[in-house]
Amino acid sequence: MAKNEQFVKAIADIEADFPQWYTDVVVKTKLVDYGPVKGTMVIRPYGYAIWEIIQRELNARFMQMGVENAYFPMLIPMSFLTKEAEHVEGFAPEVAVVTHAGGAKLEEPLVVRPTSETIIGHMYGKWVESWRDLPLRLNQWCNVMRWEKTTRPFLRTSEFLWQEGHSVHETAEAAEEETLKMLFCYAEFCKTVLCMPVLTGRKTEKEKFAGAVATYGMEAMMHDGKSLQAGTTHYMGQNFAKAFNIQFTGKDGALEYGYTMSYGVSTRLIGALIMTHGDARGLILPPPAAPVQVVIVPIAAKKEGVLAACSALADRLKGAGVRVKLDDSDNSPGWKFNEWEMKGVPLRIELGPRDIENGNLTLFRRDTLEKAEAPLEGAEETIKNLLKEIGDTLYARAERRMHERIVPAGTLEELLAGVEGGNFVRAGWCGARSCEDKVKEFAQATARVLDEKNDMPVCVCCGKKANHTVFFARAY
Amino acid sequence: MAKNEQFVKAIADIEADFPQWYTDVVVKTKLVDYGPVKGTMVIRPYGYAIWEIIQRELNARFMQMGVENAYFPMLIPMSFLTKEAEHVEGFAPEVAVVTHAGGAKLEEPLVVRPTSETIIGHMYGKWVESWRDLPLRLNQWCNVMRWEKTTRPFLRTSEFLWQEGHSVHETAEAAEEETLKMLFCYAEFCKTVLCMPVLTGRKTEKEKFAGAVATYGMEAMMHDGKSLQAGTTHYMGQNFAKAFNIQFTGKDGALEYGYTMSYGVSTRLIGALIMTHGDARGLILPPPAAPVQVVIVPIAAKKEGVLAACSALADRLKGAGVRVKLDDSDNSPGWKFNEWEMKGVPLRIELGPRDIENGNLTLFRRDTLEKAEAPLEGAEETIKNLLKEIGDTLYARAERRMHERIVPAGTLEELLAGVEGGNFVRAGWCGARSCEDKVKEFAQATARVLDEKNDMPVCVCCGKKANHTVFFARAY
Repeated sequence: MAKNEQFVKAIADIEADFPQWYTDVVVKTKLVDYGPVKGTMVIRPYGYAIWEIIQRELNARFMQMGVENAYFPMLIPMSFLTKEAEHVEGFAPEVAVVTHAGGAKLEEPLVVRPTSETIIGHMYGKWVESWRDLPLRLNQWCNVMRWEKTTRPFLRTSEFLWQEGHSVHETAEAAEEETLKMLFCYAEFCKTVLCMPVLTGRKTEKEKFAGAVATYGMEAMMHDGKSLQAGTTHYMGQNFAKAFNIQFTGKDGALEYGYTMSYGVSTRLIGALIMTHGDARGLILPPPAAPVQVVIVPIAAKKEGVLAACSALADRLKGAGVRVKLDDSDNSPGWKFNEWEMKGVPLRIELGPRDIENGNLTLFRRDTLEKAEAPLEGAEETIKNLLKEIGDTLYARAERRMHERIVPAGTLEELLAGVEGGNFVRAGWCGARSCEDKVKEFAQATARVLDEKNDMPVCVCCGKKANHTVFFARAY
Repeated sequence: MAKNEQFVKAIADIEADFPQWYTDVVVKTKLVDYGPVKGTMVIRPYGYAIWEIIQRELNARFMQMGVENAYFPMLIPMSFLTKEAEHVEGFAPEVAVVTHAGGAKLEEPLVVRPTSETIIGHMYGKWVESWRDLPLRLNQWCNVMRWEKTTRPFLRTSEFLWQEGHSVHETAEAAEEETLKMLFCYAEFCKTVLCMPVLTGRKTEKEKFAGAVATYGMEAMMHDGKSLQAGTTHYMGQNFAKAFNIQFTGKDGALEYGYTMSYGVSTRLIGALIMTHGDARGLILPPPAAPVQVVIVPIAAKKEGVLAACSALADRLKGAGVRVKLDDSDNSPGWKFNEWEMKGVPLRIELGPRDIENGNLTLFRRDTLEKAEAPLEGAEETIKNLLKEIGDTLYARAERRMHERIVPAGTLEELLAGVEGGNFVRAGWCGARSCEDKVKEFAQATARVLDEKNDMPVCVCCGKKANHTVFFARAY
């Protein structure tokens, strides 16, 4: 058990130093490594496999909604950015700029896309002619770049991977409806695949996307009670349609500007699921998002028949659609237990000579740390049900935490105490930017989303009548 | 039939002006469009769907070979490039350079990856410690950038999508073996998925990858008899291991440099399949790579029962794993025939009241332009067999063309006549760079690959003893 101790000590205490725990876990489980340029990350196979599952799951949902994948160029003429006034103000300070190429200085500097509204708007302006072309719904999976001062793997890096969807609709209503539909699609995905509950709602003017009419976000509560923005959808009105001349001939023959919307989630989601589910031993991956759902550890592997039985079981589970790994390496079972626990594999099977003799296997649940026996016969069903139960348990646990840690506040002092205690704070707000700024200054907390229900009577800051009820929190 | 005429005229004559035919076809079938920055392309949904099929098929093969996917940063410190002398010489002239980011000038300029040997080499140097870490086989799907003067969609664009695999092995033999294994994997993929025959072989020193010990390529013959390099694999020896300090402790306890290799194919493959199979009417997509394998066109769609029968058939085919589209738009059948023929859908089903009454369907093969009837009952099997047959026919046709158009040459004049006639020319070569240069100057042809068989007696250029037999061709 000495090695066990060593393993646990390799990760900082999750309660005492959560940021260090996070850094230790993501690097030591080989999800990610630091790239040579400051603020960049290398996504290693274990982390990239999670991203591929996220891609597959979202692609399936997007296709259902009539979205098609495409690919737009990464380099955007600087002049495009300036066509939408708010957009350039928001993004210009953090772009990376290509000034030289092919051995010569470029006539116009090119921006590495921080997001693609402008270049996609330009192409849509070329493609859209008639109402028959609408709705036009495209998505791309790509890298984007935003030069950030403080970075952390997955959560905030200068380059990251994401998907960005962009649609054009005939009417404001249709574009607004799509914006909400996609928000709910994201939230359902977070629940089903990441086993992660989210709060959804509209963002304040201060927090909205540069160039949008309205931004909607989903916020997840991390282990330390801080909030993480897990995805956003934006209704643009005609802002980008006017900037890029996206016009169509309507059913009535008149030329009109389209209404656009966009939406995106990124490799940040990997950070979100780590900080939602992890514990003192390391990662806990929700089964639907786990590259390895079940690890089989042979006990007394050199005894005759053990490896063969493990291998046969692995094949049966594979056949049943379970992502399974047989760890037949030379390491000791204890070493393997620790390694796969740290790597967050949801379910471990131990199989040794005695189990085989009794027709049993031993199961270890990563979420509850409970061991149990089950018959080898019919193991496929047992294990699939158990994986489902582990996912449900992880979701329920995260949901309970979030609900227990939403507290109301009537004053700035209460709000400060709330966020310092690791809570989301529900409070009234008059709607003035000055009050929102004051909250940030006083409590280092920001308005995450507006609640649909507006039942707080007065503004937590100025005490005047509240026009909104807001979830405030400290955020990643 | 007026519209039919119009359609055909929309594409340049494939025999008279093949380059224009290509441009017409890729743009008009909405595979691709031009981006706003010179030399860039937008991959539209129909083109991107082909790329997704290529990705899926290659991923499956890579996984079988023990390769895992990962993601490395796009921006590479300029100093990395210079660590391998040949590499920087080859790539420095065509890189795009980020000099400013986050509103400030960077201390060191960053290069947008033209390929990732250097940054991956840097990480491998960090990760590899022992022979137990080897072989290390990673692949990434990403965008890369090479600033090119003359560009054409898919074939040569400043930004393109590709996969690049990079492995480290313990011995030279293992790395060389992997280099050939991957070449054969590519060739099998081209045959099976793109129905495209390729010539494989080693490249000359002049044509090899900058920094490699040996480059192997696969070359496909296009409709006009020119060659297209469809993919390459590179054996690096210890060149990059020494440049990036990829060292491991061997089984004998001694510290050694690893042996590396890399391999890549790109969105160029889409251009290759277009120019291999297309005809006067437009695209012909090989069934394994076609986003739509079967289009169903209802005849007299407004007659009762027709659309329902088409829809039921579409569901049956989907259930059988066929990628099928029911075109229930308002356009006339003739218009639809032309559109889907131009878009290269391998098989068309026509279904009207008479067919339904007779329990039949009408089939139109895009490859042979033949129509036939078949019973509605058991249509799934008929159609799957037919798709297989179409693929086989396309492959056989392309293979026959390639074999018919490989001609021998004993002199420069014969070589010139050969390539001018749209052939690959098989000729002896002494091995001198000066002779290779002379061939290019005289015939605008390059050494595509060396033949395994060396049976040509004298060098086509200098007349001295031939040390190699080379396939020369004009190339894209």
